[in-house]
Amino acid sequence: MAMKNWIGHVAATGAAKEFGIATGELEILDDASICSTPGIAAAGTHAGVKAEGALDLALVDAGVVCNSAGVFTSNRAKAAPVLVSIDHLADGKARGIAANSGCANACTGERGVEDSIAMTAAAADLFACAPSQVLVASTGLIGFYLPIAAVTSGISGATLGTDSQCGHAAARAIMTTDTVPKEAAVKTSVGGKEVTVSGMAKGAAMLAPSMATMLGFITTDASIEADVLQVALRSAVASTFNRISVDACQSTNDTVVALATGTAGNQTIDTPGAPGFLEVGDAISEVCAQLALKMVCDGEGATKVARIAVNGAASASDALAVARAIASSVLVRCSLHGADPYWGRIASEIGASGADEVRPELVSISYGGTAVAAKGVAIPHDEDLVREHMAKPIVEIVCDLGLGDGSSVMFSCDLGPGYIEENRGTS
Amino acid sequence: MAMKNWIGHVAATGAAKEFGIATGELEILDDASICSTPGIAAAGTHAGVKAEGALDLALVDAGVVCNSAGVFTSNRAKAAPVLVSIDHLADGKARGIAANSGCANACTGERGVEDSIAMTAAAADLFACAPSQVLVASTGLIGFYLPIAAVTSGISGATLGTDSQCGHAAARAIMTTDTVPKEAAVKTSVGGKEVTVSGMAKGAAMLAPSMATMLGFITTDASIEADVLQVALRSAVASTFNRISVDACQSTNDTVVALATGTAGNQTIDTPGAPGFLEVGDAISEVCAQLALKMVCDGEGATKVARIAVNGAASASDALAVARAIASSVLVRCSLHGADPYWGRIASEIGASGADEVRPELVSISYGGTAVAAKGVAIPHDEDLVREHMAKPIVEIVCDLGLGDGSSVMFSCDLGPGYIEENRGTS
Repeated sequence: MAMKNWIGHVAATGAAKEFGIATGELEILDDASICSTPGIAAAGTHAGVKAEGALDLALVDAGVVCNSAGVFTSNRAKAAPVLVSIDHLADGKARGIAANSGCANACTGERGVEDSIAMTAAAADLFACAPSQVLVASTGLIGFYLPIAAVTSGISGATLGTDSQCGHAAARAIMTTDTVPKEAAVKTSVGGKEVTVSGMAKGAAMLAPSMATMLGFITTDASIEADVLQVALRSAVASTFNRISVDACQSTNDTVVALATGTAGNQTIDTPGAPGFLEVGDAISEVCAQLALKMVCDGEGATKVARIAVNGAASASDALAVARAIASSVLVRCSLHGADPYWGRIASEIGASGADEVRPELVSISYGGTAVAAKGVAIPHDEDLVREHMAKPIVEIVCDLGLGDGSSVMFSCDLGPGYIEENRGTS
Repeated sequence: MAMKNWIGHVAATGAAKEFGIATGELEILDDASICSTPGIAAAGTHAGVKAEGALDLALVDAGVVCNSAGVFTSNRAKAAPVLVSIDHLADGKARGIAANSGCANACTGERGVEDSIAMTAAAADLFACAPSQVLVASTGLIGFYLPIAAVTSGISGATLGTDSQCGHAAARAIMTTDTVPKEAAVKTSVGGKEVTVSGMAKGAAMLAPSMATMLGFITTDASIEADVLQVALRSAVASTFNRISVDACQSTNDTVVALATGTAGNQTIDTPGAPGFLEVGDAISEVCAQLALKMVCDGEGATKVARIAVNGAASASDALAVARAIASSVLVRCSLHGADPYWGRIASEIGASGADEVRPELVSISYGGTAVAAKGVAIPHDEDLVREHMAKPIVEIVCDLGLGDGSSVMFSCDLGPGYIEENRGTS
């Protein structure tokens, strides 16, 4: 199955399941966009950050002040828009989002913060709300100032719409080295009321999954308190965006925010134990999972994706540490590029992972269901079968540590010359 | 200055100084080999691990039982020869070393341990000592068994010699993807007695500096107790081999051992405070520094090397964490390959380094002495000068964190298509 067909397949059958998250009954929506959520208006336009004609400015207006939540980069060098969005989210309220691509507005000091505030002010005029009700995000080159007059003028002149074309334009406008836009939407039911969750994301490199990664914007019409939405969003991010790795580099700008309009009419979800929390949480996780898979499949220069499942660990955190070490290894990723089943590199990464408990003599490794090593040593196996599997665009690696019940899943992509070509220069 | 000329230059003027280690008066020896130390015999031969004709077996015989020390990989998946050498070094005594290339004898279970013991037994016969007095090392592919009959037969048939040609052959026989052998030797004076330290090493990938890295064999005629030699070796390794990074992958086989024949006639150095400790320690550090620089310059596919100095950190450990993060970043290494001064990636790695104290708004960054960022933001600078510097094979990156007196140095190399080509396949 080709990489893109595979995304379509898992998006139709439940991407969250690929990450090992139990997902209940959800309706996966076609023609998904951030506007799939009723009441959400969006725009994608050219403001003048990128070269003429390229979309570089996205706006999302929820129409009402929403209970909102956010997860941001753990990098100490937080970009200006991250600092401003964290500040604006302090009260758990937001009306909309202004985001640009082409310039990260990172490492730009006080002027960068002023520019981000100017973006929120311009969007606030357009949305007819207070600037503190606008969240802001930027993505692109680090160390450069925004052409702020062009950006604010682009915001002022934008035309918002609620149809899917407007959503698609917004998803395109946040792309940098992404080759395809990333959108997802699902419907669920809460106490007899239909609830929609939709989202869009960008990200193809500087993807390191120990925090929120990339830009991701989620909307829902569910009625849910901000602190409860924060719990659901943090959990969804941990299990999806934080389980993909392209290059183990943490960005200065990573931002995932969720806005809940509350217009679905469900009884407000006011605690993580309240009716509807699981349904809405599952829907958010599914949207995040679809977006995460689309990101790793679109990793810079990527020609294939690996699903790395680690089972039998002494703890879930050990399983995740091992899966992350394998997913981040440039040597494992070179092997993927060469479609070469060099399991010794995986065994070495397991040993070097820093997991609390690892006993190399108990480790088993398989590719596509064919065991190639057991109890830490090579075992006879059908080499043709493994070779055939390694040639596929989706490679399944399963490691069993032989110790306990801990398990985890990570997705990674191969490291090929395309990544280097993409990243040799600044632009 | 070309990369190889530069190595010659620093080897002649004191490589340890490049790592920020104060080195006293030392005589750098020409035609260096492990045999530069009086009394050391060596051999490099073809035993049959690699294809016909290629050297794949190295032997070092100190002629006497030596006070010895070792530093080994921190990987939990330790290769069989590592386990056997740790065991044989438990009493701080060793007579010689048997090492092969082409097969790492890692992930080989009990049979691997038996094979390593068989290598020590064959070498013990040749050296006329006990098998427990022989250290063993292997390097090459993980997950494969040694052709042990060929290896032991190769050991039995080897002819040891004390001339430099024998030393050079041994240095060639431990190479895997290395393109040049790595040897170094220096002389110092201890209480009026001349003392020599010499060494050889191999390593071009799977180089991650949070432990001993690669294979390195050091000999000296100094008289020094084993536990004091261990202190000197551990310190030298920490400041040299552990300050280079090629791909942030930890090997299963990393081994650095030092053998001291005690024939130089100096008063035995029996504590780290005893006369002569600093001189011998400096000499060991200088040999390790030369070998470490040769390794990073020979990194797989490397076309250039970066010296990354971090100053002004709140602590030395913070400085090292930041330098290591920059050195390990695939994005920074891609920029090096493209000779592109994208300092934003460096600023991002500083923020993501995990150092205890980082204040992005205080950070300064320079390339080749030209400051490109100060107080966390871009500053006007002579772009031609930076471009000229980035085109050189040795790039100097200096970051000042603006916080305190902590400083550290790391060396890294660029990430280019050559690395991927080398590592796509198993062989």
